[in-house]
Amino acid sequence: MRSLRLIASCPERIGIVARVATFLADRGASITQADQYQDSGSNTFFMRYGFDIPDADGLVPEMSEAFRPIAEAFAMKWKLRDPNERRRVVLLVSKFDHCLAYLLHRWRVGDLKMDVPCVISNHNDLRELVEWYGILYHHVPVPKEATRKQAAFEETARRIEEAVPDAIVLARYMQIFPSWLCERFRNSVINIHHSFLPSFVGARPYHQSKERGVKLIGATCHYVTEELDAGPIIEQDVIRVRHSDTIEDMMRLGKDVENTVLARGLRCHLEDRILVHENKTILFS
Amino acid sequence: MRSLRLIASCPERIGIVARVATFLADRGASITQADQYQDSGSNTFFMRYGFDIPDADGLVPEMSEAFRPIAEAFAMKWKLRDPNERRRVVLLVSKFDHCLAYLLHRWRVGDLKMDVPCVISNHNDLRELVEWYGILYHHVPVPKEATRKQAAFEETARRIEEAVPDAIVLARYMQIFPSWLCERFRNSVINIHHSFLPSFVGARPYHQSKERGVKLIGATCHYVTEELDAGPIIEQDVIRVRHSDTIEDMMRLGKDVENTVLARGLRCHLEDRILVHENKTILFS
Amino acid sequence: MRSLRLIASCPERIGIVARVATFLADRGASITQADQYQDSGSNTFFMRYGFDIPDADGLVPEMSEAFRPIAEAFAMKWKLRDPNERRRVVLLVSKFDHCLAYLLHRWRVGDLKMDVPCVISNHNDLRELVEWYGILYHHVPVPKEATRKQAAFEETARRIEEAVPDAIVLARYMQIFPSWLCERFRNSVINIHHSFLPSFVGARPYHQSKERGVKLIGATCHYVTEELDAGPIIEQDVIRVRHSDTIEDMMRLGKDVENTVLARGLRCHLEDRILVHENKTILFS
Amino acid sequence: MRSLRLIASCPERIGIVARVATFLADRGASITQADQYQDSGSNTFFMRYGFDIPDADGLVPEMSEAFRPIAEAFAMKWKLRDPNERRRVVLLVSKFDHCLAYLLHRWRVGDLKMDVPCVISNHNDLRELVEWYGILYHHVPVPKEATRKQAAFEETARRIEEAVPDAIVLARYMQIFPSWLCERFRNSVINIHHSFLPSFVGARPYHQSKERGVKLIGATCHYVTEELDAGPIIEQDVIRVRHSDTIEDMMRLGKDVENTVLARGLRCHLEDRILVHENKTILFS
Repeated sequence: MRSLRLIASCPERIGIVARVATFLADRGASITQADQYQDSGSNTFFMRYGFDIPDADGLVPEMSEAFRPIAEAFAMKWKLRDPNERRRVVLLVSKFDHCLAYLLHRWRVGDLKMDVPCVISNHNDLRELVEWYGILYHHVPVPKEATRKQAAFEETARRIEEAVPDAIVLARYMQIFPSWLCERFRNSVINIHHSFLPSFVGARPYHQSKERGVKLIGATCHYVTEELDAGPIIEQDVIRVRHSDTIEDMMRLGKDVENTVLARGLRCHLEDRILVHENKTILFS
Repeated sequence: MRSLRLIASCPERIGIVARVATFLADRGASITQADQYQDSGSNTFFMRYGFDIPDADGLVPEMSEAFRPIAEAFAMKWKLRDPNERRRVVLLVSKFDHCLAYLLHRWRVGDLKMDVPCVISNHNDLRELVEWYGILYHHVPVPKEATRKQAAFEETARRIEEAVPDAIVLARYMQIFPSWLCERFRNSVINIHHSFLPSFVGARPYHQSKERGVKLIGATCHYVTEELDAGPIIEQDVIRVRHSDTIEDMMRLGKDVENTVLARGLRCHLEDRILVHENKTILFS
Repeated sequence: MRSLRLIASCPERIGIVARVATFLADRGASITQADQYQDSGSNTFFMRYGFDIPDADGLVPEMSEAFRPIAEAFAMKWKLRDPNERRRVVLLVSKFDHCLAYLLHRWRVGDLKMDVPCVISNHNDLRELVEWYGILYHHVPVPKEATRKQAAFEETARRIEEAVPDAIVLARYMQIFPSWLCERFRNSVINIHHSFLPSFVGARPYHQSKERGVKLIGATCHYVTEELDAGPIIEQDVIRVRHSDTIEDMMRLGKDVENTVLARGLRCHLEDRILVHENKTILFS
Repeated sequence: MRSLRLIASCPERIGIVARVATFLADRGASITQADQYQDSGSNTFFMRYGFDIPDADGLVPEMSEAFRPIAEAFAMKWKLRDPNERRRVVLLVSKFDHCLAYLLHRWRVGDLKMDVPCVISNHNDLRELVEWYGILYHHVPVPKEATRKQAAFEETARRIEEAVPDAIVLARYMQIFPSWLCERFRNSVINIHHSFLPSFVGARPYHQSKERGVKLIGATCHYVTEELDAGPIIEQDVIRVRHSDTIEDMMRLGKDVENTVLARGLRCHLEDRILVHENKTILFS
């Protein structure tokens, strides 16, 4: 037996589940996990099914071919995925290393099932850490001057494309992606922002939090879009702070939240649990 | 259109979803919500489907009749429910009134969709509160002496049965249900225990918490079984305490946790989200 | 013995604690609780001391008289309070009753040590509930037209002043206080806003939350100032939501957070735990 | 100026704060942080003061000498500490590396102000990780046979004593310390237990959690005493699990809780925030 996963969305109609489940039953598949959602505003149906299927019947290309007529009949956007096929994740970092160190540790012990073809950084500081894990490190400085900046992002894009990634993670990468980069890797670039969005968009959110006197600080994992820190939110969490906590205390406390929020969000992406709809995420648990 | 809900469990087999979904599609039903779980240890399948169906086709008795052959073919335990049919809930209390007051307020403003045929108490203290809400109050004292205690529980059982309830909620009812009562209303009696079970079973859990010096206190909502505080857990939550918090502080802080944990657990029961399996709950979200 | 409480702030100088503690020791007082904070930016010192003192020596007017020279020497803003003297709290509400019902229940069972001289509302809906608790209900409608609105707020101010309150709680009062009212009762008007500020200022925060697709919703208790929802934050908390939660679900889930955040904030105010400094709160635990 | 810290406990008496604060004021010290607690059961007073003092006056030996008469007058247990003096922490591990990796990362980036003279392990698996950080790794296998086990613990004790540590952290060290070892390093050995104590004492708490069907799993950081998992609790936290989470999911989810709970507990120890009293901790914030 092998395990597979079907993720699909389409205009709501009667009989979708019956048709898909019958297709699977006809091939001897046992549905092990099912989640679905219906957006009443747009009348759209979203589904994620996991199933076990006899080895011979579960070849992705053949199944895809067989499923295509159903998908077309319902006008589905869909993918059929093998959960054991490791996703490829490119990490981008600047100088703060906590998210990077956390993700790499979790990857090494098998908690994040992915391959990391390379890490790209606009600084050279974290090379030693990355190379200890046996991972390729590309140093791509991003100058302030517009033409050279553009060239830097082109090189970054080239490095990303070479790696053929399923996800690009901005693990505290302190550069703003230009629109064309957001466009090119739409719904694949995952950022961790160190505030509880939409509070404290932009630079230095811990300073903004201290200034406003909030009693909880947070972190938000979201897909990157053209508008800064305004893309579809994947995951968020918070931690309590006190009046006596300095900005340095907040930065230290916030690290744990950033780490776990980013890792949870990335994990959802790797497990095909996220569907983006109208700048929001549907998150199948 | 009317909304209905199908909850079922059966030995895992290929084709269950296909068969059920086809049954629904054939009747013009649109599946609006679906959740399922497969327990690999016992090889059991659990499902909860919500669907909208044309009025004429969605009469519960007729649908039940039509569904029966499928249920039998898969050896299902099942029920077909109308979510708009209000469940009947009997509340039992002693002297602490926070859970009672919370549930009644939530009921009155429509947040808990249920009818409350009566409140039963071994004391008379909370009569005024209950009657303000226009609800019947039965005072059934529970003496310590064995024969009279037995008689009291028989009267309690009679009062409960008269009310034909879907749930019996022990909203800080400080008497231990005898085995035969647990047996008679199996998987229908919901208790709130003011600790994070299995810590601090039995009497005075806040005192036990203080004595042990825990840093979080909690509450647990569970189905009542013969073994004290050992039934299937429905919901739990915790709140932080400090070394300087007294037992009185803990009792005060704990009230909010008790209230919300009990209300969430009851709500899940009313919405048919809970399936009990091997002294544990499957909780469909 | 009687218990008293000293709250003070002054420019930081060496010897403040020594001088105050010696003053207390000379009168036979045992310091039972002490908390302090030093704001390094403004070089300001804040303190809150609880102490037990022999009855004869602990009369507030006499002690205040004796303490005055010390306070003047250090240029203190200060108050000496009897924790057993019940604070007076005026509640303002509109139509949503969950915060009101929660506060009144907590007050009746003794969890909130306060007197409630009256409830003021721009609607008449909650009269029955309030009067059941034996509390005076003032119906002061707030018309839209400017002159009559001004008159309504003048009547509101008069009602508040008659009650000589220590705190004015906007328990889901859906009118914006004019500047002169904020000014008159500075650092005494406590509002509950149903979002995690500074996110979703203003109207319909649950709608804004749904629109933005956040994964946690929250509530914020703050002092009211001239700028809408921008006053010093006292307390905040959040609760998790899912993509499938509707705005109605959010409103229902949010009620518990609103209730507990408001009650905790009010409790801190009643126990003199809050000092306001530069639009932020110092919160002694 | 230099910063110092005074931690003390003694029988409650009038004038302690006055005497200590006057002592500090006389030496030109500015009290920057103060916390205290009075245990009414045992009538014991506990305090922790932070203060800034002119360099010349703030030498620990001289100040200690000067303070001794006061300490004796009040029968204090006390210590005067320099917060900038780095504490020495010995880490013990077995095969799970998440706590170790987390603590070492936090140490390297300066979030945990300590020196790590060595890591001791009953296995050799984590040598490479430890040595990458430039830290000495002692492999001390612990055989099952009683005499050789005793010898192993004697070597462990010797290694610990050579390091002259302020804390010994059992970062998932899967051996039970014999009583004489607990005794020798009383209130210095910090363990992380992967359950919400007192639930699930002993082996395989995640398996026990799954078996009982709890809805939250947790971790507890505590001082090690002769009785297994029953020492004074320093810190605890929990995370939500679902019926569908396997034991492997729980282990993965639990890692974050274990890491942060252990790091927070250790941090409190390093900052002299913990006083142990009657098998409970007083935790100054």
